[in-house]
Amino acid sequence: MFKKVLIANRGEIALRVHRACREMGIRTVAVHSTADADAMHVRLADEAICIGPPSATDSYLNIPAIISAAEIAQADAIHPGYGFLSENARFAEIVQEHRITWIGPDPEHIRKMGDKVEAKRTAAALGLPLVPGSDGPINSVEEALEVAEKIGYPVLVKAASGGGGRGMKVIPDAASLPSLVSQAKSEAKAAFGDDTVYIEKYLSEPRHIEFQIFGDGQGGAVHMGERDCSLQRRHQKVLEEAPSPVLSAAERARMGEVVRQAIAKLKYRGAGTIEFLWENGEFFFIEMNTRLQVEHPVSEAITGLDLVREQIRVAAGLPLSVTQDDIHFEGHAIECRINAEDPASFAPSPGRVTDFHQPGGLHVRVDSALYDGYRIPPYYDSLIAKLIVYGANRDECLMRLRRALEEFVIHGPKTTIPLHQALIEDSDFQKGDYSIKWLERWLAAKAEAAKS
Amino acid sequence: MFKKVLIANRGEIALRVHRACREMGIRTVAVHSTADADAMHVRLADEAICIGPPSATDSYLNIPAIISAAEIAQADAIHPGYGFLSENARFAEIVQEHRITWIGPDPEHIRKMGDKVEAKRTAAALGLPLVPGSDGPINSVEEALEVAEKIGYPVLVKAASGGGGRGMKVIPDAASLPSLVSQAKSEAKAAFGDDTVYIEKYLSEPRHIEFQIFGDGQGGAVHMGERDCSLQRRHQKVLEEAPSPVLSAAERARMGEVVRQAIAKLKYRGAGTIEFLWENGEFFFIEMNTRLQVEHPVSEAITGLDLVREQIRVAAGLPLSVTQDDIHFEGHAIECRINAEDPASFAPSPGRVTDFHQPGGLHVRVDSALYDGYRIPPYYDSLIAKLIVYGANRDECLMRLRRALEEFVIHGPKTTIPLHQALIEDSDFQKGDYSIKWLERWLAAKAEAAKS
Repeated sequence: MFKKVLIANRGEIALRVHRACREMGIRTVAVHSTADADAMHVRLADEAICIGPPSATDSYLNIPAIISAAEIAQADAIHPGYGFLSENARFAEIVQEHRITWIGPDPEHIRKMGDKVEAKRTAAALGLPLVPGSDGPINSVEEALEVAEKIGYPVLVKAASGGGGRGMKVIPDAASLPSLVSQAKSEAKAAFGDDTVYIEKYLSEPRHIEFQIFGDGQGGAVHMGERDCSLQRRHQKVLEEAPSPVLSAAERARMGEVVRQAIAKLKYRGAGTIEFLWENGEFFFIEMNTRLQVEHPVSEAITGLDLVREQIRVAAGLPLSVTQDDIHFEGHAIECRINAEDPASFAPSPGRVTDFHQPGGLHVRVDSALYDGYRIPPYYDSLIAKLIVYGANRDECLMRLRRALEEFVIHGPKTTIPLHQALIEDSDFQKGDYSIKWLERWLAAKAEAAKS
Repeated sequence: MFKKVLIANRGEIALRVHRACREMGIRTVAVHSTADADAMHVRLADEAICIGPPSATDSYLNIPAIISAAEIAQADAIHPGYGFLSENARFAEIVQEHRITWIGPDPEHIRKMGDKVEAKRTAAALGLPLVPGSDGPINSVEEALEVAEKIGYPVLVKAASGGGGRGMKVIPDAASLPSLVSQAKSEAKAAFGDDTVYIEKYLSEPRHIEFQIFGDGQGGAVHMGERDCSLQRRHQKVLEEAPSPVLSAAERARMGEVVRQAIAKLKYRGAGTIEFLWENGEFFFIEMNTRLQVEHPVSEAITGLDLVREQIRVAAGLPLSVTQDDIHFEGHAIECRINAEDPASFAPSPGRVTDFHQPGGLHVRVDSALYDGYRIPPYYDSLIAKLIVYGANRDECLMRLRRALEEFVIHGPKTTIPLHQALIEDSDFQKGDYSIKWLERWLAAKAEAAKS
């Protein structure tokens, strides 16, 4: 097993990785920007090394500085967390070139899944169901028209290098196709430096359902069930739950086996997530994330597994600690992402935490790097805490979540706690009746109501 | 289901009960002494009523004041927590006489189990194994000699109304019996106003192993496995774990079935604990507690059940939510009782909490009514927090406990956190190799080492 792991991240995920290492008897090295000298992960780690100024480009994305830190501290492995360099295949390669173990998948798999067109091609080859669409990039308007005709309108045009909705358009009919494809290409060019676009079936009210998978790199693989992450604002997940309110055990087992076989065939190593859109009982592959997800704790809650420990084990060459038969799903879990943001405008709200009190008690987990007196820096992601609540069933989980939110005290910055409190009182949410479009509509209606 | 529950307690257990009520949609009424006006349970409850001055006799033990509060608030049930009035049969009766539901067992059962001689008689009739000894009180020295001869020396003489080791003596041989019995009687008379004593087999290095049971009052009953509470200082439990490091699954199932049948035969209602001494594979009944225990969370951790919810359900006339077949034991849990005490001298250390930060993350639970700035009053029990940690197995649980203790910040009062930190590094403890006498010896050795 590793003696020392460098954690190339910050905030709650750096703390999450630190905890897993600590519990395995592994020493930790924190790296941090000058803005994070007082951060919790820095305080708790065995060693801490400053890698640059506040700007992420100069610190948490600064590959030479991170590699130097690892060499100075003689770390034998690097855990990248999520975000920052976690899906940077070149970084993974550089780590390995320095004879440091990369706690993550093979760089080749990161690269393959990082390119949306290539990812879809791979998924298809692995037997994952795709959204019907163009087989790769669209090279001409004629081709686009032909593909759209075959799928049936409305269709969607999307940027191959895209994300966050940029370079994406809904095309209602053939007449508007040429201009909308052209608009999408210009947007894609401007945003990503690449005007490659493709076309696919437009789903009207899909859910976002993703499967947590784990591979041992040798062809052994398991799935750990799904998470429903349909509640999104501007493509950012707000609240996640497991299991999905719409899947039966049989559907879970069937689709779980499909993804498990795909991952086994790929000889994938470590944690990953296969994301689908889901509508009317059908799954459509959208992408694969080759890293740990923010929302991994809901899977931990319903399986009892420790996903970061599993990542570290597999990276160290140990087998997965469980087989598919060992994995049982029990109860229901919900995670609320608590951001330092105005809950009405979503404007970031950094600054000093003047009072911090976490809810406790049965089946309540808080993952947060906040503490009383901590000054939230304005430079990074606004996620400041994850509240994860478990219950024997969804109703019990919701009741517990309500009381936990009630007990959670974060004074100083504004937070999205009131947003979650309002959200869980909504009857659609309580019934589990929502698509990926639901939250934006709900927020718009709330904003409208507040005005009048 | 109840609309409103009055919580006749304070501190972490008042908060525990409040949380369970909240999660069941039940309104809560806190009662408090003037010293507890700022307490967490008072802040969070729907209503709060002051029932008297700081002295517990005048507040938390003040039956008329509590009944009045329940009537004023129109509470339809009272939960007594543990300690205070929780095992006061007369209080339970008065509650019922006021047509308020008592969330606890039948007063008759409380009374029966509250008298040690009567409790042993009942246990024997229910088929529970007893420590071999006198069949009830010892009426003469001759009788004592005869009983001791039959059991074999050393034997123990104990006060019938006793507790906390008062009126208790080890008798090594027949020669010293008369004077030791006489001493025990005088001590018993002085301490409890009752010089009734009995004699039993003396166990040299027993463990304290207790079974959590639950009855529906109709003859339905389950056991929820055992807790090992051998780590005690002056008969006060310090750290508890489940399962016991010395029981096999077969032994658990066998003894669990014995206690389950006993509880079913008794038609017991609600939560209870059957405490045993255990030596060389043999169980010896010592007493039954007719209430929730401080250490109930370790049973919750390994079964996934919510014991307070179960208490409330049963009191409301609902069936137990589980049958014995539904209860599975998974993993390992440890609870550390964190007291506001000097970890070396155990002198109470009340006062203002200047910094409070709970550990979080996977499988870590904190039950505590502390908050930053809270002033711990000097009038009550020194328990200020329970840290409950779960792991897939005992080793994993210990590693997680270490890191959780490391993260726990309580500044201001002195606490027993350093004691727990030292304890879990001991190799005997790590092997699970300890009896009820072990901790006192370990503490004495530590004190000795500190002197030199």
